[in-house]
Amino acid sequence: MKEQIETILREAGKILADRFQQGDDVSEKERFHLVTNSDREVERFLVDRLRSLFPADGFVGEEGGESPGDSGARWLVDPLDGTTDFVMGKPYFAVSLAREEQGQIVAGYVYNPISNELYSSTQDARASYLNGKPISVSRTSDLREALVVFGFSARMERIRRYYEEWQWIFEGCRKGVGWTTPALTLCNVARGRIDAFIDFGASSVGHAAASLILRNAGGVVLSYDLAEYNHCTEGVIGCTPGLLEEIMRKKTR
Amino acid sequence: MKEQIETILREAGKILADRFQQGDDVSEKERFHLVTNSDREVERFLVDRLRSLFPADGFVGEEGGESPGDSGARWLVDPLDGTTDFVMGKPYFAVSLAREEQGQIVAGYVYNPISNELYSSTQDARASYLNGKPISVSRTSDLREALVVFGFSARMERIRRYYEEWQWIFEGCRKGVGWTTPALTLCNVARGRIDAFIDFGASSVGHAAASLILRNAGGVVLSYDLAEYNHCTEGVIGCTPGLLEEIMRKKTR
Repeated sequence: MKEQIETILREAGKILADRFQQGDDVSEKERFHLVTNSDREVERFLVDRLRSLFPADGFVGEEGGESPGDSGARWLVDPLDGTTDFVMGKPYFAVSLAREEQGQIVAGYVYNPISNELYSSTQDARASYLNGKPISVSRTSDLREALVVFGFSARMERIRRYYEEWQWIFEGCRKGVGWTTPALTLCNVARGRIDAFIDFGASSVGHAAASLILRNAGGVVLSYDLAEYNHCTEGVIGCTPGLLEEIMRKKTR
Repeated sequence: MKEQIETILREAGKILADRFQQGDDVSEKERFHLVTNSDREVERFLVDRLRSLFPADGFVGEEGGESPGDSGARWLVDPLDGTTDFVMGKPYFAVSLAREEQGQIVAGYVYNPISNELYSSTQDARASYLNGKPISVSRTSDLREALVVFGFSARMERIRRYYEEWQWIFEGCRKGVGWTTPALTLCNVARGRIDAFIDFGASSVGHAAASLILRNAGGVVLSYDLAEYNHCTEGVIGCTPGLLEEIMRKKTR
């Protein structure tokens, strides 16, 4: 089953990659239609292909809303994680897919078709993989060494909110940046390239798959309000175990 | 000559791409050594290979400083545009190379080895190319439709400076983001994916090549203080001709 899903994911990624590379042919007004069209096309493709494998499953997408099944299992489909980077020419976008059974995420897949990075994990495996090789989080525990990503672009009221709520991290970490591609960024925490990701706006279908991947790579996943992680709510925090104490300082401030 | 330079560039890019993909093997303390080592290795490679083709030329690098020649021509070498994205796992980095004769940039090359995007231009051609195909800037002239990139990460004093100096663009554009890879971002303006790039900190070797590419794709290039572009100073502004008036409003505010 894993192989079949990865094949579907790679085909979906190919659609996105082709659209990304053609992006320079569209006029400015068409740019966001491009993203909407790519979103829809890839979501339809994924739902069609998965439904032929799992005819009794339900589906939740960003574009197509929800279609219920009667197997007790659902697929959470994010056809294009990182729409801003996609439309503005940065090859940091992904297809993200999570399988939910009885309310639990049991499998997660995140695929960047340009860098050919396919992240995956299943509940049973209790491990996470990048292109089939096991990955794990970094051992960073010192904030001064930490690379931290916040979920902002250039909207000042959002930047201010992150700054006010996380000032000691903004000012104390080795390097902080604002990125808007939650699934891939959680996977970069899982892989040990960065140490924390803090995002109050990430959609549920945007972080469900990657959160399983991060947890099974040895990372910590929390809801944005520091409560137990819930894949159905907006916002997410992911970090190395070594940085959890710094993150939890938010509670006492 | 162009073909030989592009071959050298692709080989240099391969070194970076291999290092990027191995990045998960390094410990957190080694991350910035990784970047320093990759920088140095690629710069040495480029200087060695170019020197064998142009033995009388001078070289200016980010790592190796300046080595004078006696041909009147120099190469400005940026072995790794986008160090932050490189080290944090985002495939948005490039090798950038500019040839200067009698103080003028006469050829520019910018190459992202992960997305395989090679941008190039020569003064004589008066045109710019992506993988050999001509490119041009967007026709965007309405700020409300514009996609704008500012050169910030998560350092609040820098974000505030951009916001204070460009508030009407921050608040009035379709979408604004903060990115730290000047050469590739100027090339994305040249290609028509984004409409303006505003950066007060971009190093001279970081924007020299891409500025020629942008100008020859129909774009406008200015110094950060709105004076005539000078490839030897820090900072740069690049935009579509249609947005120049909005950019120049800075003078009257």
